[in-house]
Amino acid sequence: MFKDDCIFCRIIKGEIPSYTIYEDDDFKVILDAGPVSKGHALILPKDHYDDLYELPEDKASAAFVLAKKLMIRITDKLGCDGFNICQNNKEAADQTVKHFHMHLVPRYEGGQKFFAYTPLQLSPEEQTEIKDRITG
Amino acid sequence: MFKDDCIFCRIIKGEIPSYTIYEDDDFKVILDAGPVSKGHALILPKDHYDDLYELPEDKASAAFVLAKKLMIRITDKLGCDGFNICQNNKEAADQTVKHFHMHLVPRYEGGQKFFAYTPLQLSPEEQTEIKDRITG
Repeated sequence: MFKDDCIFCRIIKGEIPSYTIYEDDDFKVILDAGPVSKGHALILPKDHYDDLYELPEDKASAAFVLAKKLMIRITDKLGCDGFNICQNNKEAADQTVKHFHMHLVPRYEGGQKFFAYTPLQLSPEEQTEIKDRITG
Repeated sequence: MFKDDCIFCRIIKGEIPSYTIYEDDDFKVILDAGPVSKGHALILPKDHYDDLYELPEDKASAAFVLAKKLMIRITDKLGCDGFNICQNNKEAADQTVKHFHMHLVPRYEGGQKFFAYTPLQLSPEEQTEIKDRITG
């Protein structure tokens, strides 16, 4: 259930303090310590799963429904202008703590950027080849 | 069900071509035309909802379970090293097409950055005040 050296497991157990904005039998939701914006929060399943590859489907389903509910609540309470929900898996995708978590990121007009990338220019042949590899 | 001036509704109806990697009764999944990386795809509900504020809970649940399944498939087929799932709501959060969509972003070692932000330095008093506003 818990993993000894996992900082999120220790937060869930209460060994490390956190700003908790929601809790039920399966999830704890805390404010991010290095937030993109005011109100940036993390949905954590109480049981340890490294990432979405490991998280069972019923918990994945519950996590995203909870994200919708909390997005509505945070939008109402903080008056943000938009909202990102992001979930990162593995270091190559900027996952910094290996305990599944879903980012709830309120966004405000005039706030800092969150995303930065240059869209790739792929040819029709390249996109077709990618499609064929995925569907093949 | 459809919204006339919506580009994603027109793609779902087949009026505009797309590279479709998955389809069922409720969802169509297409390659993004301006991808972060090779294999970047979008989960689109076939019915029109502007964003996650509008999407019913049962479809939100199904969308994220589908994201997990497709992440596993794309990782297997394309050999990516990590995976982001992002869902943006409202212009202030970089939503560019107002038809709910969930980004499936394969990431590769050495690939371009996706996120860019500077973590805010919030005091314990500020975090406590945010927590109190959300939970109050």
